[in-house]
Amino acid sequence: MQNPQLNSDGNLRHLLSIEGLPKRTLNQILDTAESFVGVAEREVKKVPLLRGRTVCNLFFENSTRTRTTFEIAAKRLSADVISLNVGTSSQSKGETILDTVDNLIAMHADIFVVRHAQSGAAHLIARHVPPHIHVVNAGDGRHSHPTQGLLDVFTIRKYKPELHNLRIAIVGDILHSRVARSEIHALTTLGVPEVRVIAPKTLLPAQVEKLGVQVYHDMNEGLKDVDVVMMLRLQNERMNGAMLPSSQEYFKTYGLTQEKLALAKPDAIVMHPGPMNRGVEIDSSVADGKQSVILPQVTYGIAIRMAVMAILTGGQQPNQSTGGIE
Amino acid sequence: MQNPQLNSDGNLRHLLSIEGLPKRTLNQILDTAESFVGVAEREVKKVPLLRGRTVCNLFFENSTRTRTTFEIAAKRLSADVISLNVGTSSQSKGETILDTVDNLIAMHADIFVVRHAQSGAAHLIARHVPPHIHVVNAGDGRHSHPTQGLLDVFTIRKYKPELHNLRIAIVGDILHSRVARSEIHALTTLGVPEVRVIAPKTLLPAQVEKLGVQVYHDMNEGLKDVDVVMMLRLQNERMNGAMLPSSQEYFKTYGLTQEKLALAKPDAIVMHPGPMNRGVEIDSSVADGKQSVILPQVTYGIAIRMAVMAILTGGQQPNQSTGGIE
Amino acid sequence: MQNPQLNSDGNLRHLLSIEGLPKRTLNQILDTAESFVGVAEREVKKVPLLRGRTVCNLFFENSTRTRTTFEIAAKRLSADVISLNVGTSSQSKGETILDTVDNLIAMHADIFVVRHAQSGAAHLIARHVPPHIHVVNAGDGRHSHPTQGLLDVFTIRKYKPELHNLRIAIVGDILHSRVARSEIHALTTLGVPEVRVIAPKTLLPAQVEKLGVQVYHDMNEGLKDVDVVMMLRLQNERMNGAMLPSSQEYFKTYGLTQEKLALAKPDAIVMHPGPMNRGVEIDSSVADGKQSVILPQVTYGIAIRMAVMAILTGGQQPNQSTGGIE
Repeated sequence: MQNPQLNSDGNLRHLLSIEGLPKRTLNQILDTAESFVGVAEREVKKVPLLRGRTVCNLFFENSTRTRTTFEIAAKRLSADVISLNVGTSSQSKGETILDTVDNLIAMHADIFVVRHAQSGAAHLIARHVPPHIHVVNAGDGRHSHPTQGLLDVFTIRKYKPELHNLRIAIVGDILHSRVARSEIHALTTLGVPEVRVIAPKTLLPAQVEKLGVQVYHDMNEGLKDVDVVMMLRLQNERMNGAMLPSSQEYFKTYGLTQEKLALAKPDAIVMHPGPMNRGVEIDSSVADGKQSVILPQVTYGIAIRMAVMAILTGGQQPNQSTGGIE
Repeated sequence: MQNPQLNSDGNLRHLLSIEGLPKRTLNQILDTAESFVGVAEREVKKVPLLRGRTVCNLFFENSTRTRTTFEIAAKRLSADVISLNVGTSSQSKGETILDTVDNLIAMHADIFVVRHAQSGAAHLIARHVPPHIHVVNAGDGRHSHPTQGLLDVFTIRKYKPELHNLRIAIVGDILHSRVARSEIHALTTLGVPEVRVIAPKTLLPAQVEKLGVQVYHDMNEGLKDVDVVMMLRLQNERMNGAMLPSSQEYFKTYGLTQEKLALAKPDAIVMHPGPMNRGVEIDSSVADGKQSVILPQVTYGIAIRMAVMAILTGGQQPNQSTGGIE
Repeated sequence: MQNPQLNSDGNLRHLLSIEGLPKRTLNQILDTAESFVGVAEREVKKVPLLRGRTVCNLFFENSTRTRTTFEIAAKRLSADVISLNVGTSSQSKGETILDTVDNLIAMHADIFVVRHAQSGAAHLIARHVPPHIHVVNAGDGRHSHPTQGLLDVFTIRKYKPELHNLRIAIVGDILHSRVARSEIHALTTLGVPEVRVIAPKTLLPAQVEKLGVQVYHDMNEGLKDVDVVMMLRLQNERMNGAMLPSSQEYFKTYGLTQEKLALAKPDAIVMHPGPMNRGVEIDSSVADGKQSVILPQVTYGIAIRMAVMAILTGGQQPNQSTGGIE
């Protein structure tokens, strides 16, 4: 079967998951994002690459944070942005998802940014749309959230460019994470030699070793000499019930404190996808500390989303002379 | 009394209902929309006709679909768009509709797109605003939804340009339809010789024949040799209660299937204003079939709304050279 | 302690409250707003001063009216506007206000327009942000709503330019008003010799005379020979309970009628911040009468908000040649 994310020329057609993207495409996205980092630092944070295009934020579940980042990214590319909280509209009139999508295609939407509680929703839409329409998965169930994965890899590359020399630890709820799996894939594809996962057994997927990672249940062992510590958000709803004892207990065992971080390399960076549960998976002194790159992750997230939308619509580099007339 | 939709020069001042629009104005809107169809097919789907103008979507009842089409149309005209769900804001602070409108006028809104559950709301606002402000009715109660009616007529003209030779059937809930009545008026004004309505007695207004239509209660008779089949949406709430037996029963008698459609002319087109109840008023094989022009209706809806707003503000043709600088 | 609203050069860095602004800065805002009044009267109501900047409306409590005015002002300055109703999003995921703000800073927001039910929220954020980010208080608890105060002063200056000759009465719920206190401060700073407050004792703050005003409990005495009557909105929730008898009773004693207004100077102007409770604090014949400048206040509110955002980001005058290419 052909990769649904690539067209017949091997160019990116949709961004649905990091799995299935060749190393070449990953590097294309990361390199393009590099050029957009500069745009955000200009006084006029805008390039005309998507002027006159319509980006449709199709959110079947609410996520202000993700919607905002895509909205900002699209507006900085000069696109028109339409945001639809579909959960509260046509769906309740009995229209199917694909009817809603067909209507928006008929209105000449160019890019769909899709968020849905169920895995595979973005894939379903991608299979349905005609060739000139592009779909970006902005999170579907536990399955995938590729721009988050890409911005994490971008951040690592920014601070630790020698990927082939890195030791990276991913800590926390691997089982329910939308991104951990994608990131493991991206990191190994890009040549990171050692990826560790640190979590209690109840928060690890079955046969996680098969992804090419080393499994630790103890922070003190797992963090030893790593270059990067990627903390995952602990969903509050996991707390109640059999999976975990209590947030205090979790913090004691798996929360990242200054003491535990001291086991990593002295220049190790600390990452978190946000929003943070301070005092649950991460201590405030670490979150706000010198080694934290949590806010740069957010900054790079805008650049990654701009890059993805620019590549999908065929314009990959920001116009060099956008200070002037557009 | 002067027509509230036209100014003293006979130009369009507000679009409140199709009734009362002279044939000349109908054709002006349809012809202008023609020129905007091309804009949506460009890479840069934008013309600067309303740049620096403020379009205010004033929605007293929620309608994501309608709001989205007006928002897209206004943005493609380069207007600034402000969307207000008024049901949830100032109204609850005890401010009257007209106070809300006066405030937005004071903020220099140029066009009000008004949606309200009660018939006459858009007319009320139109009577209130000063001459340089324009009102577009985006649906008021059962009364009127003129841009929907216009896009339907536009679609018919696109596929069947010889209006004076057409036989058109409108099928379903004529009684509660915002558009059926407007469309009948528009079609007869534009010279369509035969308009049929097909519906159970409970879904027909009293004395419907006086609108100049032929009445049928049987699909097999009514669809015979027609050029256009316009299906209407069956509101779910009509199902419960005395008006109709059940959705299965309705589908059996008035649902459009391939078999029933075969009674129409072989090149007849099928229309539906959306959102569709598949399996209630229309079978999926027809909705998605070769004769369906349901999605082109949506496309033309954007062009019609662009045309209406452009005519209201005085600029009727898209700039021919908008590929360049605006 | 240094004034948190001014930077070390004495230029405006944040707009948090009118208190603490030197006369020079007040006049700078009012004079800049003057130049923006003209922009709203052009056909193309847009200047490119904030093109490529991101204005973030951060509303922790809903206020459609205030949000709309800032959104319109920012769009007319050509900014990209992101509106966040924070009460319904990240906050519910347990993220702190400052984490939300940090994330938006990382996305390169330039201006935060902050509305919060609690006094001091905008100050908290202003203390937190780096030097190149600007905060505008759009209402915090009872404390402050400086752009409302400024637009009121601007309106007075427009109609009664000789501020040093004026007698101004502020009528109604001074105690709970976000603006009365600011306005009193602004008016006395700008040289207005006589400011009166007229209210029942239950709606006056303790020691109100210390603000430099004359206190009246009787409309007939207080309105005598004034140039300006500023009515305040009576919050419905004040009505129930011990503070006030009933809205009819209130109207009888403190509602502004034609008869009471006749006690003021013949050319006195009537102001109200909106939304009005017609028949409670103001009679409709006065609200809609010749002396009312209530709608011009709304118009000037856009100009004031444009002026504040333009000054904060360093561009103070609208481009003179914006009719052309931007």
